[in-house]
Amino acid sequence: MSIPVPNPSPDFNITRTSHLVLSSNDLEKTRAFYEDVLGFHVSDQDDGALYVRGLEEAYHHSLVFIKSEGPRKCLRMGFRMYTDEDLKIAHTYFNERGHKAEFVERPYQGLTLHVNDVVGVPLEFCATMDQKPALLQQFHRHHGGKPMHLDHVQIATHNVQAAIDWYSELGFRMTEYTATDGTDELWGVWLKRKDTTQDVVFSNGRGPRLHHLAFHVSDIASIIHAADAASSMGFASSVERGPGRHGIANALFIYFRDPDGHRVELFTNHYLAIDSDFVAKRWELSDTSRSQLWGLPATQNWFFDATEFTGAPVLEPLLDAPPVTLEKFMEQTT
Amino acid sequence: MSIPVPNPSPDFNITRTSHLVLSSNDLEKTRAFYEDVLGFHVSDQDDGALYVRGLEEAYHHSLVFIKSEGPRKCLRMGFRMYTDEDLKIAHTYFNERGHKAEFVERPYQGLTLHVNDVVGVPLEFCATMDQKPALLQQFHRHHGGKPMHLDHVQIATHNVQAAIDWYSELGFRMTEYTATDGTDELWGVWLKRKDTTQDVVFSNGRGPRLHHLAFHVSDIASIIHAADAASSMGFASSVERGPGRHGIANALFIYFRDPDGHRVELFTNHYLAIDSDFVAKRWELSDTSRSQLWGLPATQNWFFDATEFTGAPVLEPLLDAPPVTLEKFMEQTT
Amino acid sequence: MSIPVPNPSPDFNITRTSHLVLSSNDLEKTRAFYEDVLGFHVSDQDDGALYVRGLEEAYHHSLVFIKSEGPRKCLRMGFRMYTDEDLKIAHTYFNERGHKAEFVERPYQGLTLHVNDVVGVPLEFCATMDQKPALLQQFHRHHGGKPMHLDHVQIATHNVQAAIDWYSELGFRMTEYTATDGTDELWGVWLKRKDTTQDVVFSNGRGPRLHHLAFHVSDIASIIHAADAASSMGFASSVERGPGRHGIANALFIYFRDPDGHRVELFTNHYLAIDSDFVAKRWELSDTSRSQLWGLPATQNWFFDATEFTGAPVLEPLLDAPPVTLEKFMEQTT
Amino acid sequence: MSIPVPNPSPDFNITRTSHLVLSSNDLEKTRAFYEDVLGFHVSDQDDGALYVRGLEEAYHHSLVFIKSEGPRKCLRMGFRMYTDEDLKIAHTYFNERGHKAEFVERPYQGLTLHVNDVVGVPLEFCATMDQKPALLQQFHRHHGGKPMHLDHVQIATHNVQAAIDWYSELGFRMTEYTATDGTDELWGVWLKRKDTTQDVVFSNGRGPRLHHLAFHVSDIASIIHAADAASSMGFASSVERGPGRHGIANALFIYFRDPDGHRVELFTNHYLAIDSDFVAKRWELSDTSRSQLWGLPATQNWFFDATEFTGAPVLEPLLDAPPVTLEKFMEQTT
Repeated sequence: MSIPVPNPSPDFNITRTSHLVLSSNDLEKTRAFYEDVLGFHVSDQDDGALYVRGLEEAYHHSLVFIKSEGPRKCLRMGFRMYTDEDLKIAHTYFNERGHKAEFVERPYQGLTLHVNDVVGVPLEFCATMDQKPALLQQFHRHHGGKPMHLDHVQIATHNVQAAIDWYSELGFRMTEYTATDGTDELWGVWLKRKDTTQDVVFSNGRGPRLHHLAFHVSDIASIIHAADAASSMGFASSVERGPGRHGIANALFIYFRDPDGHRVELFTNHYLAIDSDFVAKRWELSDTSRSQLWGLPATQNWFFDATEFTGAPVLEPLLDAPPVTLEKFMEQTT
Repeated sequence: MSIPVPNPSPDFNITRTSHLVLSSNDLEKTRAFYEDVLGFHVSDQDDGALYVRGLEEAYHHSLVFIKSEGPRKCLRMGFRMYTDEDLKIAHTYFNERGHKAEFVERPYQGLTLHVNDVVGVPLEFCATMDQKPALLQQFHRHHGGKPMHLDHVQIATHNVQAAIDWYSELGFRMTEYTATDGTDELWGVWLKRKDTTQDVVFSNGRGPRLHHLAFHVSDIASIIHAADAASSMGFASSVERGPGRHGIANALFIYFRDPDGHRVELFTNHYLAIDSDFVAKRWELSDTSRSQLWGLPATQNWFFDATEFTGAPVLEPLLDAPPVTLEKFMEQTT
Repeated sequence: MSIPVPNPSPDFNITRTSHLVLSSNDLEKTRAFYEDVLGFHVSDQDDGALYVRGLEEAYHHSLVFIKSEGPRKCLRMGFRMYTDEDLKIAHTYFNERGHKAEFVERPYQGLTLHVNDVVGVPLEFCATMDQKPALLQQFHRHHGGKPMHLDHVQIATHNVQAAIDWYSELGFRMTEYTATDGTDELWGVWLKRKDTTQDVVFSNGRGPRLHHLAFHVSDIASIIHAADAASSMGFASSVERGPGRHGIANALFIYFRDPDGHRVELFTNHYLAIDSDFVAKRWELSDTSRSQLWGLPATQNWFFDATEFTGAPVLEPLLDAPPVTLEKFMEQTT
Repeated sequence: MSIPVPNPSPDFNITRTSHLVLSSNDLEKTRAFYEDVLGFHVSDQDDGALYVRGLEEAYHHSLVFIKSEGPRKCLRMGFRMYTDEDLKIAHTYFNERGHKAEFVERPYQGLTLHVNDVVGVPLEFCATMDQKPALLQQFHRHHGGKPMHLDHVQIATHNVQAAIDWYSELGFRMTEYTATDGTDELWGVWLKRKDTTQDVVFSNGRGPRLHHLAFHVSDIASIIHAADAASSMGFASSVERGPGRHGIANALFIYFRDPDGHRVELFTNHYLAIDSDFVAKRWELSDTSRSQLWGLPATQNWFFDATEFTGAPVLEPLLDAPPVTLEKFMEQTT
């Protein structure tokens, strides 16, 4: 392994994870789940698409659902760049390096650039989006999980080292990581551009596949209330894991599965990571506290089920899965 | 002073504070405030009356608002007795002692008894009420202050000693009290029948007047959210005091004024008081921490403004008001 | 089945669940767990015993640990009666009915009565206990799970119907219950004397055995912090179940196993149950939401492991265990 | 007024508010307040200085207290730059523009640069600091207000427009602002470098003076517990304002005065502000909801008392103070 030094002066400025485009077999069911249970606000809906945003998001959407038949898919993962000028520089940069990049039109977004990353994830970048009123101080309209902002996504990839090398060149920085015990073999990497703990996580597995997307909430009460509201609205089985505390990044988490099976995390209690002398935190792969400081371990489904990306063939992981966690789980629960 | 021993075997069983009947100049405004801001659920409404209940209350109402012109009034303070048999014994008991008691018909209530207490408060007792589904596990319908149950009322009276003597005979027990420094002069008494800290509080002042009614909430977040929701719904000025912590009974409180000016407390963090060897806690009148462990003291309005009871002449208090608290307030705030 | 009407005028007044006497193989380990992790305060300790209390408990102890070798045991379950006079009446009452009752001396307690209940649980009653300062307003000394007061215990018994018949005669009242689907066969009964939801729960199983004891906490944050503190103090594996929400009684719960294996619940969000027209809530046995409104079901250990009572032979349950819950668990987790 | 466009490519990279150097008349008293009441951790102490850090801060200090006689002072306000190279460029930049900048040695810090800003605030920049273990996952050591990280400082200045012009050139960006009603006259500006809402606030008043420093906390419960702990440790009078909700930036706040009188805010519920198309939010000066969405307005002390900076003469503000807020306060409280 090598932990790459993030490029301190990338040619263009990616600022943060911005939005995701996901499939939905039934937009009404999707809307009911995100709006009524999780507490999102709907910005727009038509026959083919649903756009929602979190409570502090003062722009059009952080999640887009596209009506589609068949198995669930993630269509695009979206990042913001700072300006359109950044997008233009990136367009040249990617094409010069053999990643076919092209500008596209997307509703409610400014100039938008499409490109696939080195491990096959279809990306989308834009610098501006239509403005919408934030609902942060419309307190009487807060309900369900009170999701604040899209914070990060986690992606299973067959080649974690290739992913971190590529993203480091774009200025992403690693805050925490998992490595095979006593070796330099990177198993999972927590990467970020913004000043908090994460924007995108890559972990070893069949991929590329979207493991989950995560929204920040303000407090523990929102997490519990989301689960309670799910229960009283008939979505009890949508709670897949938690509440629990990840060792990595300190997230107090809960995981839901939406009506199509996309996995959504609500979490709180990350930290800031800004300084150049910040030291990335290492976790040994065999240390189950990285995933859970206390409580029941995750199910097999949580570990192994994920959403494929449209048009991205799934490859077998380069590293073999360790049997540790599963064994421990079965031991505890049977 | 004497702190009376509560009658361990009263002739009839009063179980708890149950409901209040209050005036409303405008039932729609009242409904908007209690339903949308504080989070009550409406059980019934007609041209002349509005009935609401808290989230865990599995019966018809804990607050009744009667459409009425003119200055706001409290029409009745309601207690539950355990059975109708208790009511019948009480009917005799009160009449024998010169308190005119009579049975009345009240909508949605079983047998109901009216009587005035020794300091002039118009009381109402019933043992049963129409059942309604509790909303405790209809989590997605919880909002605003998420009021759980009516817990207690506070009444200003000209004669605290008379009040406690009378209520002790009915089996009420004192959990905490305020006394003029170094004397046996009772200034305020916290009385209860149920197993928690209070059902009714009497404090020295022009009276009888209803100082406030109080609903229990489950956590601090509900208190903050009630204030936030009040703000975003245009009721910011309804927040009269708090959040703060009462020394007495440990309540984390907030006080609102409803559209008519009735004062409503939401609070959490009382304690149980059950055992016969429980010792009532004394607070010196000059100790301002009894009313506020930290933060700004209450305003003059909070101390001196209260709601008169229908048909109950207001008498001047037997004890002189101490200037202490007000002086301290002005000192801190100017 | 029959759901007995609670005796409205029992001969003596049992007021609440009061304390438990439990074995400890190592008082220092026990103390570390209860004091440092869960946040109890130690009232006394000597070579053979450890006494702790919760934060609002203004008396000597709610848990007593007796140094003992061998498998863990529950030595006594303790209730309060209101007065010593009640104890004396009960002494006669029990002996007349063939339950051998005797007065004993117990440190820090007033007059204390021992008797075994109808299903073999060794009980202890007292009306008074040495006073200790409550720590409710010593806020800077609150830590860990911030346990407020002992609320209830759950006991597995071979004969639920016998238990409820016996306790109803003593004035206990049922607030919720589980019954075999579509039948009148009582599977679990939630009984109480005080004005809240429970004092003692009996559920069908090999018994008598203590399933768990439960302390009330003020808010969800205390539950999460208890788990977090357990983790950072090396007690992560003591978290056995939760956080989750019981359908029955609405408890937001977490379960720990102490160093000897005794199961301790911290919970919040019960409700009051006082009125004579309160209707007990029925749950079908096959409805898993009774035990968990959302999230992972409990492990087999949680369902089947419990603490035997000293001197009480364990009998096989009269009702057969339904396979439902376990099947559902395995389905979800494998 | 003009709202300057923040320089998108400043010559050097200031990353965030980092630390403050404050006077202390009595280091033991200061330590007791910050360590025991607010929950800070002490990194070092000697006869002349005390260094503390918040729970997620993995470096030596965010607050430095220097033993000093006489009226309280703020000695330095500290920012981080990203690298030492940035510091060297800044050294030249400032000196070329007539702001005398010089490198100094500071304990536990890397290369450190001193300079006064345009309104006279003595600044200190460094890029590195000695590392210390973060206490974020030492949950059992969290107590008091559980302060997470230093977030921002507010400074009263005689010339808000000069301040924002100068800081904009350094790349600071405005997220919210107060302006005299219907005019372009800037009254208060909320400026930031990091991805959250603020690093430094300038508001019109006699200055330069430090109005307050602010630490982020994870939830409302921490704010209430800080006040409760202050009360039980004898620091009740240190609570100066709140809890309340600022309209500006949505902070749920509480303000304390430390033993020397320095004002410390604990708050939660800010939001992220990252995108180039983010629009700064305007508040009219007469709109009191900017400072308080609900509850009692601040006292005169809160508005007008602040800490002078060492060696910085205090100038009268260019804009006249509006009488609005104070009048409203007196009206409500008398």
